[in-house]
Amino acid sequence: MIDAIPTRVTKILGIRYPILQAGMVWASGWRLAAACAEAGILGCIGAGSMKPDHLERQIAKARTATTGRLAVNIPLLRGDAPALLDVTLDAGIDVIISSAGNPALVTERVQRAGATWIHVVPTVKHGRKAEASGAHIVIGEGFEAGGHNGADEVTTFCLVPQLVDALSIPVIAAGGIADHRQFVAALALGAEGISVGTRFAATPESSAHENYKRAVVEAGDGATALFAKPIAPVRAIKNAWVARVRAAEARGAGRDELLDVYGRSAARRGILEGDVTEGELEAGQSSGLIQDVIPAAEVVRRFVEGYEAARGGMIP
Amino acid sequence: MIDAIPTRVTKILGIRYPILQAGMVWASGWRLAAACAEAGILGCIGAGSMKPDHLERQIAKARTATTGRLAVNIPLLRGDAPALLDVTLDAGIDVIISSAGNPALVTERVQRAGATWIHVVPTVKHGRKAEASGAHIVIGEGFEAGGHNGADEVTTFCLVPQLVDALSIPVIAAGGIADHRQFVAALALGAEGISVGTRFAATPESSAHENYKRAVVEAGDGATALFAKPIAPVRAIKNAWVARVRAAEARGAGRDELLDVYGRSAARRGILEGDVTEGELEAGQSSGLIQDVIPAAEVVRRFVEGYEAARGGMIP
Repeated sequence: MIDAIPTRVTKILGIRYPILQAGMVWASGWRLAAACAEAGILGCIGAGSMKPDHLERQIAKARTATTGRLAVNIPLLRGDAPALLDVTLDAGIDVIISSAGNPALVTERVQRAGATWIHVVPTVKHGRKAEASGAHIVIGEGFEAGGHNGADEVTTFCLVPQLVDALSIPVIAAGGIADHRQFVAALALGAEGISVGTRFAATPESSAHENYKRAVVEAGDGATALFAKPIAPVRAIKNAWVARVRAAEARGAGRDELLDVYGRSAARRGILEGDVTEGELEAGQSSGLIQDVIPAAEVVRRFVEGYEAARGGMIP
Repeated sequence: MIDAIPTRVTKILGIRYPILQAGMVWASGWRLAAACAEAGILGCIGAGSMKPDHLERQIAKARTATTGRLAVNIPLLRGDAPALLDVTLDAGIDVIISSAGNPALVTERVQRAGATWIHVVPTVKHGRKAEASGAHIVIGEGFEAGGHNGADEVTTFCLVPQLVDALSIPVIAAGGIADHRQFVAALALGAEGISVGTRFAATPESSAHENYKRAVVEAGDGATALFAKPIAPVRAIKNAWVARVRAAEARGAGRDELLDVYGRSAARRGILEGDVTEGELEAGQSSGLIQDVIPAAEVVRRFVEGYEAARGGMIP
């Protein structure tokens, strides 16, 4: 296995391979982040399902477990996003991945700390705004991604080259990526790295429930849906709970009625507690390409060896 | 410019480059098909907007204009699909591209004629059915494609590698492809060719109205939407007519009410007659990557030269 795949992203982040493990609610704690950092990519603690004091302990554990490169993902729609950011930067984490919100809210605090700043965007307009706000890298996340998603439904395949044309800073591709062929394809689209969620959620190091991991492995190509658009679009594996939310949506339910059907703690119930019929199993369309639960280091190895094979002639 | 990019698809179809010009209602008559065939790819007359006698005249004109390789695309949901198929095969066209319907309906007639048969599919399940029905090639068409689309919303980026894994026959990637980077990416995903629609609709040889072509050129990344899902999902450029149909859909309109808002001849009004506010401007997410109206041969040249450049080191 080659020991590096250099791009501007690996240089900025100090990692060997241009691969980021995405922050995911209830799945990406210190154990997964540390395993990924040890494998030569960027490990990431997903703060989306953590309170500040819990995040602080997770960061401390991760730093004990690895000397590799670590980031924290902070969804900016969280009311306590500033507190999560303070905890992260005060703990010495120097890579911030912000998502789901106005990037300008982060600029001053991140720049004061001298941290590297990556922002997740669903369209070119959002990409331009992130670059203007001082982000060092953007992650272009397509419609196929698991979890929360943009309203314009632009796919990875179409979003990435348009971001590359519009921006000067490096673009990382996200959404639907589980496979070495997609890694090579993303680089061909002009991305300088990939951000991978669901594939890492189905590893032993992920804190997701075994039932969730099994649901990802069993999922076929059409197993997920993007729904709850009047609240905030989210992609998850179809089950009884998703069917009820989609039925309400289809009959024209308003935001309040939809929130009522959606209920509370659905993601916790599905991902952490393993209720595969009544929980929210956030996952990308990449689920159809995931056939096994394997260690995070093995996920990285498959990406890198697949890349090597492609360079040796897989592309005609 | 290299004179061939060989794959199983180019061998089966007898073309130089593994590129298909997709059949499109009101945009792909004999002139576009002949120009594409002359450029070394598969030219295609889209029968979706033609009656059998009109199709017969279009085929005759195309055959006068080129000795290159020609196909006809027949949407199987058309009541007169058998008549369109008869006209096509009787005229000596030996490549049939079927879409939007049960492939088994085509098998006997195509096999009797000894024609090459390509079927368009939106999921792995449909791909397996096409292969079992005797198709020689499948086109995997993703969510980002213009015009009619599958219900499962699987994107090109996720659909193609899953089809490649599931089938023995060659897979062609379709949906959102306008750019040489996407051509290379599609090959990296395991496709042995690409099928390109909207990019060829914005050429002088396309029979679409100038206003339609201008709308494609002006479209940004989020300019299209997939809508009318209770009737049959279709992707078009957002305008006043699309907004009305989507509003009806969002308030839970039933099929009949939605058909009423949809109205009649919307695609003809938009694509052929150029009514950009009240017509249906069927187009893919690739619209955001199309910046100019250029001859079909120039579209082919950009794909092939971009492929050459990528082979020379564009992928790191």
